[in-house]
Amino acid sequence: MTGPGEVATGEVATGDDVLAWSCPVPARHDRVVMGHGGGGVLSGELVEQIILPAFGPAGAGGAPLTDAALLTLPAAAGRLAFSTDTFVVRPLEFPGGTIGDLAVHGTVNDLAMVGAQPLALSAGLVLEEGLALELLARLAHAMGRAAHAAGVPLATGDTKVVERGHGDGLYVNTAGIGVVAEGVDIGPHRAQPGDVVVLSGPVGRHGIAVLSCREGLEFGTDVRSDTAPLHRLVSAMLSAGGAGVHTLRDPTRGGLAAALGELVAAGPVGVEVEEAAVPVDDAVRAACGFLGLDPWEIANEGCLVGFVHPEVADAVVAAMRERPEGAVATVVGRVTADHPGLVVARTPLGAGRLVDRPLGEQLPRIC
Amino acid sequence: MTGPGEVATGEVATGDDVLAWSCPVPARHDRVVMGHGGGGVLSGELVEQIILPAFGPAGAGGAPLTDAALLTLPAAAGRLAFSTDTFVVRPLEFPGGTIGDLAVHGTVNDLAMVGAQPLALSAGLVLEEGLALELLARLAHAMGRAAHAAGVPLATGDTKVVERGHGDGLYVNTAGIGVVAEGVDIGPHRAQPGDVVVLSGPVGRHGIAVLSCREGLEFGTDVRSDTAPLHRLVSAMLSAGGAGVHTLRDPTRGGLAAALGELVAAGPVGVEVEEAAVPVDDAVRAACGFLGLDPWEIANEGCLVGFVHPEVADAVVAAMRERPEGAVATVVGRVTADHPGLVVARTPLGAGRLVDRPLGEQLPRIC
Repeated sequence: MTGPGEVATGEVATGDDVLAWSCPVPARHDRVVMGHGGGGVLSGELVEQIILPAFGPAGAGGAPLTDAALLTLPAAAGRLAFSTDTFVVRPLEFPGGTIGDLAVHGTVNDLAMVGAQPLALSAGLVLEEGLALELLARLAHAMGRAAHAAGVPLATGDTKVVERGHGDGLYVNTAGIGVVAEGVDIGPHRAQPGDVVVLSGPVGRHGIAVLSCREGLEFGTDVRSDTAPLHRLVSAMLSAGGAGVHTLRDPTRGGLAAALGELVAAGPVGVEVEEAAVPVDDAVRAACGFLGLDPWEIANEGCLVGFVHPEVADAVVAAMRERPEGAVATVVGRVTADHPGLVVARTPLGAGRLVDRPLGEQLPRIC
Repeated sequence: MTGPGEVATGEVATGDDVLAWSCPVPARHDRVVMGHGGGGVLSGELVEQIILPAFGPAGAGGAPLTDAALLTLPAAAGRLAFSTDTFVVRPLEFPGGTIGDLAVHGTVNDLAMVGAQPLALSAGLVLEEGLALELLARLAHAMGRAAHAAGVPLATGDTKVVERGHGDGLYVNTAGIGVVAEGVDIGPHRAQPGDVVVLSGPVGRHGIAVLSCREGLEFGTDVRSDTAPLHRLVSAMLSAGGAGVHTLRDPTRGGLAAALGELVAAGPVGVEVEEAAVPVDDAVRAACGFLGLDPWEIANEGCLVGFVHPEVADAVVAAMRERPEGAVATVVGRVTADHPGLVVARTPLGAGRLVDRPLGEQLPRIC
């Protein structure tokens, strides 16, 4: 533990990268106190000495962490996308990521799923009294680094403090604004019978990575979270497939089963998935086996599933494979008019199995 | 307590109004369970059966509570304002308001302080396991009602659940997007010596109202929170004062003392306030007296302080007084080059007293 007045240093891992960081610890305290949430001098010190330096270049554009940031819109930005997500993942750091980069990727990806390019993010932090400032700095650094890598500023923020026992170290809310280009129209309403179902990567990594280090449940595995921003992958899909890209969803809470279920829940179509075509890493399959979990219901944070017109499917998959986050993109199924509202998995022997939307959650607080 | 499958009804008070509401309680549960945060069927039921009906018309525009909402910009919207705030106020309901309307007004007001008209809000809810769904419905209804009254949709949202003992019933994050009209430029950088300091109403009401019903501290008072949206008041000020409206701030956490301190902290100017000119309601003064608190350091949620050019000050104050939330607007001081960075209160006898920025917080979790 670095003491007040010293400079904390360390490393933060996100995705497959590790970055060194350093941050001065304010002289008055080495842990969060209630006064850090009071809006006075201590609040100002927390923001100026810990959070803004940790956010780094992502927080430096415009006037970061003022009451409201001013953003200049790109020319001809007719439509905005707006999204929010709160992250309560436990523990705060896990193989392959932290709550910080997760909070950035989650909202960037929500924007990307309607075809938007992110313009700015907000950051709302709820700190629990007693949180080590060194850990806060590390997590805020992961946020800043992820935002910088995604090319989107952390334009505005807020920090609150709750008493010990009324939080869990840190909760992070991000909201995001994105710009939707002319002609882009992505959503469940565009799903059509005959559409090809594409999946960008193997499922189940994020949830298993978080579980593997959860207190009381630690198990040995080399599974790392897939947490990653997907907006550039979506751009590549749109470049290749244009208006043939009909529907996108990132299978987070509830996993692939929930995502597919939601995409067809309202609509006149159903979906049929080739069970053997859905990639699941061996280590994820093994962990799911001994935990009694279904990998299709496990959360992902760097994966998307989409419905695309059959005429552009090959081009879209080829474009996805050219990006690292889509390197193993593949076709996993087909949209059908045969069983509206239902997701059916086709087994290797040709039998059909109904894929239920999960009722609750196998894994609480996974994101 | 209304049981599962019944229809809960009740009243919600916000500001000076009381509105009846009703909401079906889902058949499965009458309290929040971990599964409500799982992203599956239970999550969907919570949103569709409790939250969206409670949001009412404010949640009905566009596609509420999808991953990302699409917003159409007004023509010639060159600049956006973007802001976020998390609300952890304790208790969740207090005289004059609830965490729900507070969360709407807080972000609307942050946008208004840079001269923006609100376009859309997001809502990120962190629910604690065990929260009564009836209470959640009532608080969500207060949010929806406040948003509707402010004329701004709750365009997108997210709900997470944390285990009992890791929250405090409900935390609410709102983020907001606003549109800044051409030529509007409001901020501390525009403060000038000679500017007139205007205050929209009496200070200290919100903090005292919340304290008066806090567990272990209940005291009899008729003080009600001033929680209110201020964007229409700002519009009226801009109509009357144009580019002469230089700087605005809503004195929330840390109160008037912190707000004035922040406005001059960076700048080449200071501010001098006539102590006797700052309105404080008798009941607030009495409560502050026996609690040992300074009303200038108490949070407000429906009050603003501004620096305006002396040539437009009379017109701005007159315009403010025509609106209910500015009915007692008044001039309280003057911006000066004499003591840069400092706030000085002038007593009725002419003596000067330095007004410190509060260090921490007299009152934790007031918003």
